[in-house]
Amino acid sequence: MLTTNPFDDDKLREECGIFGVSGATGAAALTALGLHALQHRGQEAAGITSFDGTLFHTHRAMGHVAGNFDRDDVIRGLPGEVACGHVRYSTTGETALRNVQPLYADLSTGGFAVAHNGNISNAMKLRRELVRRGSIFQSTSDTETIIHLVATSNYRTLLDRFIDALKQVEGAYSLIVMTPEGMIACRDPLGIRPLVMGRLDGAVIFASETVALDVCGATFERAVEPGELVIVQGTEIRSIHPFQAVSPRPCIFEWVYFSRPDSIAGDQSVYSVRKEIGAQLAIEAPVDADLVIPVPDSGVPAAIGYAQQSGIPFELGIIRSHYVGRTFIQPGDKVRHLGVKLKHNANRALIQGKKVVLIDDSIVRGTTSLKIVQMMREAGAAEVHMRIASPPTRHSCFYGVDTPERAKLLAAKLDLGGMTDFIHADSLSFVSIEGLYKALNAARDGKPSYCDACFTGDYPTTLTDHDETATVDQFAMLAERVA
Amino acid sequence: MLTTNPFDDDKLREECGIFGVSGATGAAALTALGLHALQHRGQEAAGITSFDGTLFHTHRAMGHVAGNFDRDDVIRGLPGEVACGHVRYSTTGETALRNVQPLYADLSTGGFAVAHNGNISNAMKLRRELVRRGSIFQSTSDTETIIHLVATSNYRTLLDRFIDALKQVEGAYSLIVMTPEGMIACRDPLGIRPLVMGRLDGAVIFASETVALDVCGATFERAVEPGELVIVQGTEIRSIHPFQAVSPRPCIFEWVYFSRPDSIAGDQSVYSVRKEIGAQLAIEAPVDADLVIPVPDSGVPAAIGYAQQSGIPFELGIIRSHYVGRTFIQPGDKVRHLGVKLKHNANRALIQGKKVVLIDDSIVRGTTSLKIVQMMREAGAAEVHMRIASPPTRHSCFYGVDTPERAKLLAAKLDLGGMTDFIHADSLSFVSIEGLYKALNAARDGKPSYCDACFTGDYPTTLTDHDETATVDQFAMLAERVA
Amino acid sequence: MLTTNPFDDDKLREECGIFGVSGATGAAALTALGLHALQHRGQEAAGITSFDGTLFHTHRAMGHVAGNFDRDDVIRGLPGEVACGHVRYSTTGETALRNVQPLYADLSTGGFAVAHNGNISNAMKLRRELVRRGSIFQSTSDTETIIHLVATSNYRTLLDRFIDALKQVEGAYSLIVMTPEGMIACRDPLGIRPLVMGRLDGAVIFASETVALDVCGATFERAVEPGELVIVQGTEIRSIHPFQAVSPRPCIFEWVYFSRPDSIAGDQSVYSVRKEIGAQLAIEAPVDADLVIPVPDSGVPAAIGYAQQSGIPFELGIIRSHYVGRTFIQPGDKVRHLGVKLKHNANRALIQGKKVVLIDDSIVRGTTSLKIVQMMREAGAAEVHMRIASPPTRHSCFYGVDTPERAKLLAAKLDLGGMTDFIHADSLSFVSIEGLYKALNAARDGKPSYCDACFTGDYPTTLTDHDETATVDQFAMLAERVA
Amino acid sequence: MLTTNPFDDDKLREECGIFGVSGATGAAALTALGLHALQHRGQEAAGITSFDGTLFHTHRAMGHVAGNFDRDDVIRGLPGEVACGHVRYSTTGETALRNVQPLYADLSTGGFAVAHNGNISNAMKLRRELVRRGSIFQSTSDTETIIHLVATSNYRTLLDRFIDALKQVEGAYSLIVMTPEGMIACRDPLGIRPLVMGRLDGAVIFASETVALDVCGATFERAVEPGELVIVQGTEIRSIHPFQAVSPRPCIFEWVYFSRPDSIAGDQSVYSVRKEIGAQLAIEAPVDADLVIPVPDSGVPAAIGYAQQSGIPFELGIIRSHYVGRTFIQPGDKVRHLGVKLKHNANRALIQGKKVVLIDDSIVRGTTSLKIVQMMREAGAAEVHMRIASPPTRHSCFYGVDTPERAKLLAAKLDLGGMTDFIHADSLSFVSIEGLYKALNAARDGKPSYCDACFTGDYPTTLTDHDETATVDQFAMLAERVA
Repeated sequence: MLTTNPFDDDKLREECGIFGVSGATGAAALTALGLHALQHRGQEAAGITSFDGTLFHTHRAMGHVAGNFDRDDVIRGLPGEVACGHVRYSTTGETALRNVQPLYADLSTGGFAVAHNGNISNAMKLRRELVRRGSIFQSTSDTETIIHLVATSNYRTLLDRFIDALKQVEGAYSLIVMTPEGMIACRDPLGIRPLVMGRLDGAVIFASETVALDVCGATFERAVEPGELVIVQGTEIRSIHPFQAVSPRPCIFEWVYFSRPDSIAGDQSVYSVRKEIGAQLAIEAPVDADLVIPVPDSGVPAAIGYAQQSGIPFELGIIRSHYVGRTFIQPGDKVRHLGVKLKHNANRALIQGKKVVLIDDSIVRGTTSLKIVQMMREAGAAEVHMRIASPPTRHSCFYGVDTPERAKLLAAKLDLGGMTDFIHADSLSFVSIEGLYKALNAARDGKPSYCDACFTGDYPTTLTDHDETATVDQFAMLAERVA
Repeated sequence: MLTTNPFDDDKLREECGIFGVSGATGAAALTALGLHALQHRGQEAAGITSFDGTLFHTHRAMGHVAGNFDRDDVIRGLPGEVACGHVRYSTTGETALRNVQPLYADLSTGGFAVAHNGNISNAMKLRRELVRRGSIFQSTSDTETIIHLVATSNYRTLLDRFIDALKQVEGAYSLIVMTPEGMIACRDPLGIRPLVMGRLDGAVIFASETVALDVCGATFERAVEPGELVIVQGTEIRSIHPFQAVSPRPCIFEWVYFSRPDSIAGDQSVYSVRKEIGAQLAIEAPVDADLVIPVPDSGVPAAIGYAQQSGIPFELGIIRSHYVGRTFIQPGDKVRHLGVKLKHNANRALIQGKKVVLIDDSIVRGTTSLKIVQMMREAGAAEVHMRIASPPTRHSCFYGVDTPERAKLLAAKLDLGGMTDFIHADSLSFVSIEGLYKALNAARDGKPSYCDACFTGDYPTTLTDHDETATVDQFAMLAERVA
Repeated sequence: MLTTNPFDDDKLREECGIFGVSGATGAAALTALGLHALQHRGQEAAGITSFDGTLFHTHRAMGHVAGNFDRDDVIRGLPGEVACGHVRYSTTGETALRNVQPLYADLSTGGFAVAHNGNISNAMKLRRELVRRGSIFQSTSDTETIIHLVATSNYRTLLDRFIDALKQVEGAYSLIVMTPEGMIACRDPLGIRPLVMGRLDGAVIFASETVALDVCGATFERAVEPGELVIVQGTEIRSIHPFQAVSPRPCIFEWVYFSRPDSIAGDQSVYSVRKEIGAQLAIEAPVDADLVIPVPDSGVPAAIGYAQQSGIPFELGIIRSHYVGRTFIQPGDKVRHLGVKLKHNANRALIQGKKVVLIDDSIVRGTTSLKIVQMMREAGAAEVHMRIASPPTRHSCFYGVDTPERAKLLAAKLDLGGMTDFIHADSLSFVSIEGLYKALNAARDGKPSYCDACFTGDYPTTLTDHDETATVDQFAMLAERVA
Repeated sequence: MLTTNPFDDDKLREECGIFGVSGATGAAALTALGLHALQHRGQEAAGITSFDGTLFHTHRAMGHVAGNFDRDDVIRGLPGEVACGHVRYSTTGETALRNVQPLYADLSTGGFAVAHNGNISNAMKLRRELVRRGSIFQSTSDTETIIHLVATSNYRTLLDRFIDALKQVEGAYSLIVMTPEGMIACRDPLGIRPLVMGRLDGAVIFASETVALDVCGATFERAVEPGELVIVQGTEIRSIHPFQAVSPRPCIFEWVYFSRPDSIAGDQSVYSVRKEIGAQLAIEAPVDADLVIPVPDSGVPAAIGYAQQSGIPFELGIIRSHYVGRTFIQPGDKVRHLGVKLKHNANRALIQGKKVVLIDDSIVRGTTSLKIVQMMREAGAAEVHMRIASPPTRHSCFYGVDTPERAKLLAAKLDLGGMTDFIHADSLSFVSIEGLYKALNAARDGKPSYCDACFTGDYPTTLTDHDETATVDQFAMLAERVA
């Protein structure tokens, strides 16, 4: 298994990152670089499709971009000046290669490849209707629903068919589509998941985050707008807005945890926002302590912000090993237990006898926080105060983020006192929802400018499939099991 | 590459073997055994699908049955009392896993798995119409056409839909289908490709050859009839004949080369037929010689027949190594040339100074015959006479057999004298078409009882796709290239 | 595991084949070809060492020659005009790469590589003395003893040291040695294991069997004589006989089973000898039967001889699959049992109602004979008579052949009647020791010209280690276990 | 290749880490944990040897501890309550498994396994003498010299033989030895390489660094003293000092870079020493700047020290990807160049228009510093000042550290001005050798308390082999090349 470590396991997980380029020599190699920079958005599998003017070429693989897409033979097998790619983390048990994107189909209009970040919240309902009419699905991915809607649309042109399809789906989608005519990038009307656009010499690039542009040496131009389709055909670029306009609701967790700190999201530096959340936290929940210690690595920017605001020194109290690419499981319970320290070890000499403030970005199940507080105590900390750079996570996400079922969310089960007891901290505080918006230079009013459903339960769309039962299992039941 | 050796490369190749079992504990393990016995019918890939009463389970793999389907974890992943499987040799460049059968689809009537031996000769035309109506193909296999015809049929029950689909296809097909309701085995109206039925305790078994029944300890019951559908639902077995009756035309090459000598085909022992062809050959083309030498291993039964008829001793003049599972290619032309002897070596002490009759089953390109005559001469043979236990192969097969394009068939290019010169033999003779029918206790009249198109050009069906251009390339152009 | 099948498992197994070439461009590629032709002498592992005039290069691998030594990168990594190689079957549990030959050492006289066929029967005693004096062994191979004797010899030149070492060892050895000065090939004074010499243009070749010369296109010159050292230095070839002359005792089992039928051993065609043994068997043990059936493939030449002598037709009553490269083990006892038929299947249509004579080369444990008689009966044979083309195998071999412990040899436990009952045959006969010698144009008198200890218990050397306990285990206990 | 990235490539590399445990259930599993914590000391290969009271068991593997020693089957193959292990980075081309430690030999006194951190600087001379006397080496490792000296020693007991051997070697060695009698841990008289001792319940543990004790839950007891042998036999622990006492000279680079920051070395917290070096650097080389930016990750502690001393804010100006386990090389020069940003990316929004101080631990070739200064300028930095937390590295190490040849060390070629120009920085400063000793609470006088030869050229031992030519190549020439 390619998960990383006990600490990372207790995070919400972005399910996908996407990247596309049109008009560049070595488009697939550029896509591999871009996907590598987006690897944190999905570590289970990756895929790239290229178009050489006549044929589409695809390579999909389980595992990381490095090790799969840095091989000469793979890249040489993906010729052409147009390419798109996908990294994926999946919530289902169905980790078969057939679900790895980009998905591809031979339509009557020609080849059609699509990479999707998000989740279609009425996919199951649409699938049932399509199967009833004779469509055969080859994956258990919600994304394939879009392709069948395009294939069976009564419109004539590919673009009309595609818009027809999108008007039937609900939920979150940032999409990059390749056809023989060109590339289409689009975001759902609420713009829940991100998508940006850049330029590299004459080429156009689309990516989930700006960091993928940096890695390619491209310049960041602008975000694709919520509800916008950007159509690239050769050197021509067109933009259309086929949906009725609504207020955007981008996912606020991109700034809390998902995006890399060196990305720019919504015109704001993610690193600066995180430092500012840390500063807000220092204002809202001050503590008399000797050291500010980040939970590595995602807690570092907020910890710097907290330290600068409070004047308490920032120190590396937890050392992270670089050599745990995967879980390291030893036989025998005793030794297994010790394995927790393989990834993180307390800097004992520093902590001994000190009052420490631990800064982490979020609490999901709470299991990590429990272990890390215990690690501080075993290293001799006099007091351990936990400060969290997001509000309590109380609700599941249905828009392309892997959340545990609600019953496993610590904040859905316990109040602040209960949570403090659970993790054995001397104190625990979360930044307020207002403080979080403030760090983004916004205010949460009746018409919030972000999707913050995981904190508030305020879902911006209907949840068709989820009125019934859990989507995931329904999909998993549909297809043959591939051993 | 899993081809075998220079000699074997110059054969026609059966493209598939199929096997199905209903009502046996460990159905997948039995299927693995059966497919192993059918391995000679397709060595490129194999697959098994099982049904456990609720779910379908599939494992597909490139390569042989042994090494893939003798692993505990694989067989444990294929639970249930119903299973079918497929071994495949493919003529196209498209050797991707997605073409490995059984193919599977989730239809509105439930899961549908199919294993196919044969070739649909109007598959491309049907595919174009289906795509136009919104069907999305996931493979480049002609077999998938049948599934989409079932999915989009206007009939209600699965059986009616299936018959509706079969009535639209032309060509050769022996099929084993699995649905939640049961198993269906059928042969096309001409019965071009074989399919037999057996019993093992309470279970029903279908297989391309009786040898697969032997290996399972099952008893041979009867052949599935041309145009017959055998439907197994639990312990109930029904037979229907939905097609208009026509005279059967089973492929005669099954007795010449494809089937194993220990199989019974059309109520005749394949071994005995081959010996009888050898005897006919001795009568039609006698020669004054010291030794009868089979080209191993397929020439052995005919050589025994020739020796017994002629009274010339049967001897092993060519020794075959058991350790060439794949081509053994060495760098350097000199050494590469020597590699020919790795698989077969002349029994020099035996041959020195002798007049030898070589017996082989067929000549395709003639390259093998050339090498083997040369090997006999280098070993000191005084005379080398070649006798072939089939008529000259002059036409391509479009019914599921891998034939080189016509221009490469030696007998399509040269007359008997030219062929004799080409292979440098002292003499060369083929059994006559009449002699071949005689060995099968039949006579070739105006209404022949076998498909012998590869010898005669007398194709028993229309060849829709092939009126246009070669099927293979059209299919290969359709889908994305999967690297 | 790379064993083959239930039938083959019940054979004595030659433990090694060796090959060397001096003075040929692409020496390693030639060696790979030669080893491939000797693969039947050892299927567990293979190795090649080359010398490029300055450095020695070695590649060792578990498994067959094909798949390991037909790779361009491997052969390119073995440059030079001198090379030797080894194929190995091991009797010990120690199948680690460190035991795969050629073995190599940096001596004070320079590099020293050795490939060995045979077994040193005082290796353990010598090893103990060497370790006592400070030698460190890197393998559990008896062959390494020779290297340490050379390294610690008080003589000055490599040749004197090598002869000094050989004079201390007892048992069976055919050796090919490479040093910076040249190649040395030698056989022990009794010539127990074979070694032949050939020429290819200007190059000299040594090999266990002539078939390896055939495959390379080389001409067979002569056998290396018992007790002879052939020394090749550039184009100069010298021969010395440093040992006291004794009567040779080559292993008679080479003609019975080990050598390939297309080899010439001791100036006799192995194929012809085997046919002659079959003829002797027909004279000594005639039977009234309808068919002579060989147990494939090793029984075929003797069966042809038996058929020609007796006039009973030779027929293929057992069909062997070409697709069982390894054991095919299925979960579940019922299905496992069926697996026996995967490799061999009765030609039922032929056998039904017939009286058959089965011809096999030898009986070791008897388990195979039991199964094959049963297979004939299940196929409907009226009578089953077993004829064996060697005398009863009653004693273990300590000269480089894998024999089961004596207690497992059927002929060491039971008399002829008991054996006949055990295998459930209607009759059973072995060729007599006199008949075997007669087939070789010899007679067994007080001073036999072959080692036939496995039949007679007449061992031609002392068995130092084996006076104590089994060698194998002592060696296995010595070194670290390498997981 | 398992190197990491352009930045890490420009570091000195510790060649080994060692770990041993005596008296613990699951000793091999504990050793795997300990080696994992020492992975930064050697990433090329790893090995563990266990002793179960009768037999020694070893597993060696190329690559990391995780992925090789977290497999159940591997750990189950290493039974016993005593075990030792080794992680290795090698400077030679000879990366074959035979050089992976622990090395093992069967001596007349029984099994002998050894794990070595350091380098024997007269190994080649000793090896020549040993080969002359008949010893056969199986590796090209200097460590094997020690084993042959033990094997051929004239003393009787293993302990006397071992001390006899050590008295003949010169250079650096921390050793863990396993024999059937027990475990011996020792350091060379100068204590150049580290070795500490800890306790876990009744068990004794030895390790290169205290962090390996932390990971096992063991308590740190003390360092093994320079020139000390600690002998563990069951529950008895003895200490002897067989060498003439000299002033210790532990390697100062352990505090600069090699050891993990959470280790305690020489009674000092490595993290605190690094912060103090940073503070010294701020005092010695102040700069008027807006941000202090660490080169991740090794520059972080010194950067925190610099920031706290100078009052300039500490900020993450370079973001490191967690997903570059190996070099990611793309075809095409243009894209390859971009690959530099895969591992590290400038936090552009933070840096734009700012004056930055970069803190790194050392400069070796200078190639990394050049790239990182350029990255800062491309991100818009107004000024880039480089501060290095060690003196200029001007000399090679011969004590077990991988140093480039002197001609490639930037500080051996250029003065400070030249170096500043080379890396295109606005200014460049190194901490002084005095400042470095001060951070360690010491002073460098005529009798320095650390080995600082890489900075000063003051080597504490004679360099026998290195008076001749480079050791590495001589060793590499000795043995066969294993392809």
